[in-house]
Amino acid sequence: MEKIYDLVIIGSGPAGLAAAIYAQRARLETLVIEKEMMSGGQVLNTYEVDNYPGLPGINGFDLGQQFRQHAEKLEAVFCQDEVKAIRLQEAEGIQEETLAAAELKAVSGRKGELKEIIGAKDTYVCRSVIIASGAVHSKLGVPGEEELAGMGVSYCATCDGAFFRKKVTAVVGGGDVAIEDAIFLARICEHVYLIHRRDELRGARSLQEKLFALDNVTVIWDTVVERIDGDEKVNGLFLKNVKTGEHSDLAVDGVFIAVGITPNSSAFAGLVSLDHGYIEAGEDGRTGVPGIFAAGDVRKKQLRQIVTAVADGANAVTSAERYLSEHQKGGSR
Amino acid sequence: MEKIYDLVIIGSGPAGLAAAIYAQRARLETLVIEKEMMSGGQVLNTYEVDNYPGLPGINGFDLGQQFRQHAEKLEAVFCQDEVKAIRLQEAEGIQEETLAAAELKAVSGRKGELKEIIGAKDTYVCRSVIIASGAVHSKLGVPGEEELAGMGVSYCATCDGAFFRKKVTAVVGGGDVAIEDAIFLARICEHVYLIHRRDELRGARSLQEKLFALDNVTVIWDTVVERIDGDEKVNGLFLKNVKTGEHSDLAVDGVFIAVGITPNSSAFAGLVSLDHGYIEAGEDGRTGVPGIFAAGDVRKKQLRQIVTAVADGANAVTSAERYLSEHQKGGSR
Repeated sequence: MEKIYDLVIIGSGPAGLAAAIYAQRARLETLVIEKEMMSGGQVLNTYEVDNYPGLPGINGFDLGQQFRQHAEKLEAVFCQDEVKAIRLQEAEGIQEETLAAAELKAVSGRKGELKEIIGAKDTYVCRSVIIASGAVHSKLGVPGEEELAGMGVSYCATCDGAFFRKKVTAVVGGGDVAIEDAIFLARICEHVYLIHRRDELRGARSLQEKLFALDNVTVIWDTVVERIDGDEKVNGLFLKNVKTGEHSDLAVDGVFIAVGITPNSSAFAGLVSLDHGYIEAGEDGRTGVPGIFAAGDVRKKQLRQIVTAVADGANAVTSAERYLSEHQKGGSR
Repeated sequence: MEKIYDLVIIGSGPAGLAAAIYAQRARLETLVIEKEMMSGGQVLNTYEVDNYPGLPGINGFDLGQQFRQHAEKLEAVFCQDEVKAIRLQEAEGIQEETLAAAELKAVSGRKGELKEIIGAKDTYVCRSVIIASGAVHSKLGVPGEEELAGMGVSYCATCDGAFFRKKVTAVVGGGDVAIEDAIFLARICEHVYLIHRRDELRGARSLQEKLFALDNVTVIWDTVVERIDGDEKVNGLFLKNVKTGEHSDLAVDGVFIAVGITPNSSAFAGLVSLDHGYIEAGEDGRTGVPGIFAAGDVRKKQLRQIVTAVADGANAVTSAERYLSEHQKGGSR
């Protein structure tokens, strides 16, 4: 606990790396804590990114690397650890003997002004935190899903739909996102199957009406995917009707799995407000806790994309800078 | 008025071009109306952009071109015109003889569902509009300002501050932005002068306190810049004290002009709500008028940067898609 950072960024996907870039340019003393050695978050698993303006058709892995290299060029400091919790520190709680007198004066008597980031390996002390821990798309957990990920198996219609122009695709799920994905894909694809395990959809009525009006969408009710087939790329699904028990094969070029998303927020559940696991924070990233900000897919918002993640990172740093200014940060000049 | 677009995008800066990219990928029938032949907006005048993740240190002109080429690769359609107004159309007001029967049925009786974009050259009819008309930084209007723009004269400390590490700079202005710029630059620069024409600052007290605490910032009161000097790059300012009338020279490596910004919103003043000229719209771009969205620097928001502009473009298209779905768009499949 020797060092007090101005800012700790949790996560090194697009939101975390954009925040690192902005923080370095603002000369904040910053540490990026990443769970895995490889930066990029979900981007890494996207075989082609065609909606990050300026870099059409870039490979997801390469884009993640370019973000990382940009942050490194600006001398961002990374460490590998898994964050377990954030603790708001009473100023008195800091081990005083490890602090310089000026530091002590700066922190004395202001509750929560210092935050302790509790990692699996170490503990980090800072004045502000940006949580950019991302989310993972929920998986079906069937054979072929992992093997064919990025080769016809996708978790994001907006990201990958354009690669299936005039092809046949299936969407798995029954909620808003699944229906929206099917409607979106119907504009692009020759035909779209929506595969749902129940006999009615959960999604909004207006969306359902829109869906049922489309003549190139077929809903397959009461059905689950038992296997995704393909060699190098997806060519079919092995289905089971849960009411009759009958099995069948369905030829498709791609399958979009929309059975939910899981934000990586469990470590922060006691600290900030969550809505369905997403951290409640506005466009400026401010959570209910002063000095703690959220950015990227872990934040509650309309659209989870690379562009909105990087914007979140920039906004959160701007808010963190203001917070630090208001709290008379010691300065890292 | 032969054609009805799903979406018209007004402006071809980063927000407009990102919107064009997202709209093309969503297969919306879209037209981008740009005032000048050259896309990019204010980006074009930024000599080096170092905060667009993935493309460190890119020239502003090149970045504008890359955005444009990305949109063109996706077959975005551009036209050059200057938008004078947007009119909400009664369905009956459409020249019925120019519409197909199916179109007529789709539009009948729904007020405001069609919008007329009135340009200097032509009129365009559409179902939804994204206003991404940008903003211009207010200028001092003194000799040297135009000639040395991008060569030491800047209108954005966040954008260009990092290029003046350990150098001497001046900020001109007395509002929040000028003070924030001076505080921001003080972390980077050897010394910062804040030049203000009055004897007190307008900006927030908390910001002023923070500013006055910095030992490498000097405020020059009651003073205006009469000329910016330099050959190829800025080397000094010619100042006048407005109380004493005395002239003086100040050696600086750069000058940041923060005397305000002017959003390009006058054409839309009667239609959408403005706050200090900025269009009032949330993160999702929705204005008070259904089907009309705002994106980029023209929108009221915390941070005006390339990353937030492109995120706005993506968000506005997502909102426009939802609006079109709810209003049973004829479909451009």
